[in-house]
Amino acid sequence: MIRVGIVGATGYSGVELIRLLAGHPHVQVANLYSSSAEGEALDSVLPHVQHVSLPQLSAIDAEQMSAANDVVFLATPAGVSAELSPELLKRGARVIDLSGDFRLESGEVYRQWYKREPAPGEWLDRAVYGLAEWNAAQVAGAQLVANPGCYPTAALLALIPLAQSGWVNPRSWIVDAKSGVSGAGRGVSLGVHFSEINDSIHAYKVAQHQHTPEIEQELSKKGGVEHVVQFTPHLVPMTRGILVTAYGQLERAVTTDEVHQLYRSAYEGKPFVRLRKPGSHPRTKEVYGSNYCDISVHVDERTGRVIVLSVIDNMVKGAAGQAVQNMNLMFGWPEATGLPLVPLFP
Amino acid sequence: MIRVGIVGATGYSGVELIRLLAGHPHVQVANLYSSSAEGEALDSVLPHVQHVSLPQLSAIDAEQMSAANDVVFLATPAGVSAELSPELLKRGARVIDLSGDFRLESGEVYRQWYKREPAPGEWLDRAVYGLAEWNAAQVAGAQLVANPGCYPTAALLALIPLAQSGWVNPRSWIVDAKSGVSGAGRGVSLGVHFSEINDSIHAYKVAQHQHTPEIEQELSKKGGVEHVVQFTPHLVPMTRGILVTAYGQLERAVTTDEVHQLYRSAYEGKPFVRLRKPGSHPRTKEVYGSNYCDISVHVDERTGRVIVLSVIDNMVKGAAGQAVQNMNLMFGWPEATGLPLVPLFP
Amino acid sequence: MIRVGIVGATGYSGVELIRLLAGHPHVQVANLYSSSAEGEALDSVLPHVQHVSLPQLSAIDAEQMSAANDVVFLATPAGVSAELSPELLKRGARVIDLSGDFRLESGEVYRQWYKREPAPGEWLDRAVYGLAEWNAAQVAGAQLVANPGCYPTAALLALIPLAQSGWVNPRSWIVDAKSGVSGAGRGVSLGVHFSEINDSIHAYKVAQHQHTPEIEQELSKKGGVEHVVQFTPHLVPMTRGILVTAYGQLERAVTTDEVHQLYRSAYEGKPFVRLRKPGSHPRTKEVYGSNYCDISVHVDERTGRVIVLSVIDNMVKGAAGQAVQNMNLMFGWPEATGLPLVPLFP
Amino acid sequence: MIRVGIVGATGYSGVELIRLLAGHPHVQVANLYSSSAEGEALDSVLPHVQHVSLPQLSAIDAEQMSAANDVVFLATPAGVSAELSPELLKRGARVIDLSGDFRLESGEVYRQWYKREPAPGEWLDRAVYGLAEWNAAQVAGAQLVANPGCYPTAALLALIPLAQSGWVNPRSWIVDAKSGVSGAGRGVSLGVHFSEINDSIHAYKVAQHQHTPEIEQELSKKGGVEHVVQFTPHLVPMTRGILVTAYGQLERAVTTDEVHQLYRSAYEGKPFVRLRKPGSHPRTKEVYGSNYCDISVHVDERTGRVIVLSVIDNMVKGAAGQAVQNMNLMFGWPEATGLPLVPLFP
Repeated sequence: MIRVGIVGATGYSGVELIRLLAGHPHVQVANLYSSSAEGEALDSVLPHVQHVSLPQLSAIDAEQMSAANDVVFLATPAGVSAELSPELLKRGARVIDLSGDFRLESGEVYRQWYKREPAPGEWLDRAVYGLAEWNAAQVAGAQLVANPGCYPTAALLALIPLAQSGWVNPRSWIVDAKSGVSGAGRGVSLGVHFSEINDSIHAYKVAQHQHTPEIEQELSKKGGVEHVVQFTPHLVPMTRGILVTAYGQLERAVTTDEVHQLYRSAYEGKPFVRLRKPGSHPRTKEVYGSNYCDISVHVDERTGRVIVLSVIDNMVKGAAGQAVQNMNLMFGWPEATGLPLVPLFP
Repeated sequence: MIRVGIVGATGYSGVELIRLLAGHPHVQVANLYSSSAEGEALDSVLPHVQHVSLPQLSAIDAEQMSAANDVVFLATPAGVSAELSPELLKRGARVIDLSGDFRLESGEVYRQWYKREPAPGEWLDRAVYGLAEWNAAQVAGAQLVANPGCYPTAALLALIPLAQSGWVNPRSWIVDAKSGVSGAGRGVSLGVHFSEINDSIHAYKVAQHQHTPEIEQELSKKGGVEHVVQFTPHLVPMTRGILVTAYGQLERAVTTDEVHQLYRSAYEGKPFVRLRKPGSHPRTKEVYGSNYCDISVHVDERTGRVIVLSVIDNMVKGAAGQAVQNMNLMFGWPEATGLPLVPLFP
Repeated sequence: MIRVGIVGATGYSGVELIRLLAGHPHVQVANLYSSSAEGEALDSVLPHVQHVSLPQLSAIDAEQMSAANDVVFLATPAGVSAELSPELLKRGARVIDLSGDFRLESGEVYRQWYKREPAPGEWLDRAVYGLAEWNAAQVAGAQLVANPGCYPTAALLALIPLAQSGWVNPRSWIVDAKSGVSGAGRGVSLGVHFSEINDSIHAYKVAQHQHTPEIEQELSKKGGVEHVVQFTPHLVPMTRGILVTAYGQLERAVTTDEVHQLYRSAYEGKPFVRLRKPGSHPRTKEVYGSNYCDISVHVDERTGRVIVLSVIDNMVKGAAGQAVQNMNLMFGWPEATGLPLVPLFP
Repeated sequence: MIRVGIVGATGYSGVELIRLLAGHPHVQVANLYSSSAEGEALDSVLPHVQHVSLPQLSAIDAEQMSAANDVVFLATPAGVSAELSPELLKRGARVIDLSGDFRLESGEVYRQWYKREPAPGEWLDRAVYGLAEWNAAQVAGAQLVANPGCYPTAALLALIPLAQSGWVNPRSWIVDAKSGVSGAGRGVSLGVHFSEINDSIHAYKVAQHQHTPEIEQELSKKGGVEHVVQFTPHLVPMTRGILVTAYGQLERAVTTDEVHQLYRSAYEGKPFVRLRKPGSHPRTKEVYGSNYCDISVHVDERTGRVIVLSVIDNMVKGAAGQAVQNMNLMFGWPEATGLPLVPLFP
């Protein structure tokens, strides 16, 4: 049993980590940290965990955190990890960061898209991008894992095989993504007011969302050439789930079956990617509560485009579940340990 | 006061026509027709219209329908109008058809996308495509108006000004559309089961939806060259509303403000198109229950693309409201007569 | 045309008043007041009213408000009207108050349930409780109308006929009410966070909701004896609508048909109460966007109870619509002027 | 490892059983039965279980079912189990029936409320009512367990302690219950059409729901006198969850704390009942996906009533979860084996 600490335990990603780790055979949730509610029991803030045996909420203290945990998960807002993680890492802690602070290799690009100061370059260099299906070996040896963003997870699993194939114009990608509201976190604002969101849909941050460079960086690395992505997120009146509808311009004639075969090879043996029938339409509900990413591919011969659909639960594969998957890799356990989650349907 | 007949009065488009026409100053809802419930009162099937003064449901009979109404609205499934409308037209009736049977000029294209026999060519030739903002003069003189589809309405209002501008590659259009469930009608199936749809989103009919050729036909006519559209519809867990997120590859450098100005000119004096601030993100809820189409434009200089967002209420501007707008044009009344609907918010 | 002013124009009740008054033939929306956004255009805060011709937002000023309007609607939080209304009334203004500040005749009871200071007793005495179906004559002559609360409107229309009949034990009433989230207003809090509310239901303020004494006061006045009500509100994951499920212990044997007949007589000629078939189950959606209150009655002979179901749109009959109905009565127009609203279905 | 068979595997209760049993350490899902889809793989009907190792769907055959399974779960519509279970039981099989066919001890009462023929009396006599918290010993020795209905589970856990206390008038119970739509099953009808249900609430089967006698039977047995219940179910626009708001007339003065203490004693050591703080308001979302029943109590001294709130996930504690709990008792395993489910929040 390893001892695990969670920073930001009262947020949605934090409580999802608790849900998953409570069922993990090799883990003890040893410490919960919160900047706002120290000294309280978590169930006074989130009654759904009543009866789940958990430590009280502690204050953030790098010294104690490093000593008392074998690994620390940071489920904190942008900017917190950039400051806290180096303090932990210096003291030898292993860190899995669910925020965006260590995902971009270039501090300059971070500054441009996040409109804040990046983490120190020396630490950016050591971070491993934790897209488990593609970077398992590096994650296994990492001290600091940058857990991918929710949108990039769905987009990259959908597109990397094609990016590697060279079949698609690397500047033609359009990623039209639709997310449930839990991705916005537990903070209150008019933007998450039920009466404003229910029975409605809208796009946001068109051409300006900070997950754009993250998707481009990883596609470019895997594809070996520069990829440019038009990324548009939308807010859907549902709690969980992300659907990516991705479009690429084909540079050679391929069939749906050929693309399907490409993906079959790429994801063979990967427990959490489920390739769905060619021409089918996965639903976010079909992965609800699970760590799966379901993908289907479509080639439109009329227009010369490939369309890839992918769905994840943004709280699981898009956040806490992938973080646990990365922890499994770091500690040498089978990737799916503690995560054999059948989706909750309906 | 003119006498109006509605065929398919027990469906969603039918009852929406009733809601709108009940407030129209020049109209008497004289006859309601239903193939399934003749002789009954509408409120026995749809209690929300109790206390609204309405005729009983009658059987379908071309002779009576032509004689007893100044105009007949057909809110019927695909295939019905192809047979019924010629019978009405021969007898001199004026018809506004809310189905897709007369929207495509080519019977061959209809057969290919709808997988059924088209209406007779002689009548297809006489139909006017009722996109009121762009075809007002032809609608005014029409005997048969083909009311546009819900998705094409949102897509065409979003794209025609750019199609005419020549600024965008006409083969680059991607129309990623998101619809509420009412667009699927009142028929029962697993596809509209609450427990399957709620808290979930999915794409459907990728590369195969029958509204694709309708959008292409009208863009091509207005643009003067052939336009090809990649159209992807999605089902969103909401009752009403369509959001179109449309992407085009720019062939010359333009700014968001220039595109905004193009749209301002195009829609000046059009009461139902509201151009929203450049760079803003309209929500379907902001047009709920109204005949508005709200549009905003975004140029992404980084990628060389233009992104246009448009929202409508699929039951109003996407069906019954636009049909009333067309009726107003046919009878020489101001376009907005009976339709000065402030959206229901929230 | 009369000139109307609305205080609290940027809240949900305020914008619903604007929607309804925009279609009223005798009204000009002359002034909009807001404590938070003076000098702005309303559509900068609420873009759904773009293109609707409206005055700018003004600051609150009792002198100007009294002079520039024939009637002032107050759609303000508890406590504001208690101070502002006397200033307006002294200057001769007519006021329709949508808040709870003038609904309770006893300042002491107000203090106990609202936990704040009541309005001055002299003005409490002059206020008329604006339940239009039951107090039309008094409303017609009122200078100050206290517009009923959303829950009391649904509960009182459901129960007054039985309270008058003497058939039910007046201490046996249980009013189990279910409301959409718009009733909580536009303010932000965890209590209206989409991710907390969606796909969930809960009761709140059991035995403590401030609408309890309002229901009891009016039932007692109409029934001629003291009525005691157990009132439990619930928050339902929907935007609009209230359903009241009310239970009373019968003191004599009556049938569903007899109760139905009682209600038929009570509401004959009332345009906004629709008595539904005995034994039927009205849905909130069936009154969506309209000023109707739909009611059905059930007698359970096995248990000796009567169960009454009533549904309203909380924003219309439960707030802005009833306020317009009261204005019509005050100015001598037919009750339904500007309100012939067919519900929006689905 | 025991071998388990599931009849009705393509329905919602069936797939929820599969989700739970997939994580059970002592169970192998050996056989899936379906009357409609034999020979198919389950994931062809329900793609969310793709990658979950499961047997193909088999035809219903009492002989094979008895031989090939250590226990058979019936997740079938009313009437099926009444015929099938005796065939299985005669052959020695152990059966857990999730339908209502064996819950009522009196065939006559079943006939009256279910409007169909009851199961043979000899088998009704042998069935054990599987409310695990109250009947654990009998369940342990049962060959046939009648798994409680969803509404009765929430109502009985909420009321049995008070029924035993004698503090409440046993004819005064009112159970106002609110359910998500999944309780209606996967069959298609207008009653579960998204556009009709979304953003709306309604009561149904007032005074006539077949769960009424089930609640009364068990309250009467536990309370030792006849209890009469007014039961009203409502359909809420959410997928999962039941909230019961129950009212009883107190026959002696007690405080909220005394009632809370009564419940604390009653449920001490019961892993799946969580007594929430006195005066609190549990939400269905707080038990989502789990086998918990959360309960809070309120005494209203003003009215002399006690109000009890209880929430469950209707698919888990209200169906499949409680069935697994009963299986655990039948096979001598700790009650919570395979069910240590932290709720999915949000």
